[in-house]
Amino acid sequence: MKLHWSPRSPFVRKVMVAAHELGIVDRIECVRSVAAMMTPHAELMKDNPLSKIPAMTLDDGTPLFDSRVICEYFDTTYGPKLFPSEPKARFLALRRQALGDGMLDFSVLWRGELMRGERKSDQLIASFTARRAACLAALEREADALHHGPFTIGHIALGCALSYFDFRFADLPWRDGHPRLTQWHATFAMRPSAKATEAVDDS
Amino acid sequence: MKLHWSPRSPFVRKVMVAAHELGIVDRIECVRSVAAMMTPHAELMKDNPLSKIPAMTLDDGTPLFDSRVICEYFDTTYGPKLFPSEPKARFLALRRQALGDGMLDFSVLWRGELMRGERKSDQLIASFTARRAACLAALEREADALHHGPFTIGHIALGCALSYFDFRFADLPWRDGHPRLTQWHATFAMRPSAKATEAVDDS
Repeated sequence: MKLHWSPRSPFVRKVMVAAHELGIVDRIECVRSVAAMMTPHAELMKDNPLSKIPAMTLDDGTPLFDSRVICEYFDTTYGPKLFPSEPKARFLALRRQALGDGMLDFSVLWRGELMRGERKSDQLIASFTARRAACLAALEREADALHHGPFTIGHIALGCALSYFDFRFADLPWRDGHPRLTQWHATFAMRPSAKATEAVDDS
Repeated sequence: MKLHWSPRSPFVRKVMVAAHELGIVDRIECVRSVAAMMTPHAELMKDNPLSKIPAMTLDDGTPLFDSRVICEYFDTTYGPKLFPSEPKARFLALRRQALGDGMLDFSVLWRGELMRGERKSDQLIASFTARRAACLAALEREADALHHGPFTIGHIALGCALSYFDFRFADLPWRDGHPRLTQWHATFAMRPSAKATEAVDDS
């Protein structure tokens, strides 16, 4: 199976962490694709008209995107391990994934906003700042629970979202005031699947 | 169960279409919540720190978001009907949902960009225009297949995405050159679940 991939995309990282957790990395042919917000990518759009990564094509030509769909496909085909089937555990994992993905969504927009220079919207940046604070506060309350139960797609998404702060907002002291979350994130970052997929800015 | 709701949000509409298809609308207590990109909503953030709708709280206090998670919860609890369990059918439905959601994501950003007036980015708008064209072309190729098989969450997301063009970009001639997709969308718009949830701009 072919994966449109980049070492900088946090959503690609989710997929690769899942692949490592499931032991299927060698089944994936990674094709480097630069999916910039400003510039549509003609080759990528043949597989995903949204021009976003990750996007996958199975050996029979079936297209699969976005990261949630690819991760669930991996787990259904080679697991199950990361997506619980029991409803209470499943919707906890899926809600955590939605939180991590949502943090990534506003973080990517936030970074794009800062790159506008003088044309940036201070109101929008203030809105992202408030959301970030609320997400970190909510996760600090939930951090002890993250250590319990199985490691799921929810943990992967949250770990990738927090690591993205370190990668793209290195001066952001997100750990301040969040000791439990800091501790949980350290356990995520030490997993082999996380170490093998650390973001690289090789641009 | 309590739902942060708005008659204008296309992602809320997905959830409400699913609720109508499953016959559970009367179980949902809708609370009107205005989730503006620029302005975090303190009350909403208690239930979803991302400050986005739809966000749901179950009677036992369990939070559920975003639209994908809420729709799957409905289907697991009161279905199954909209999320196939057989893998091939399931991942087709989930990929279609991701396409519809992705079209909504860039459409919402596109509208926000136009509202910036002179500070808007022409390059970003051109990028959205190219993505929209690619998505419509891909869907035109897939339109006949949309009529076959069960009506799924994928159909709901695509229907809501196309209807959002009509609601927020009324002058956009998206039907031009896409006769099959136009025909499929008409069958979506005629469903009772779609009629009952048509977007209203009452601002």
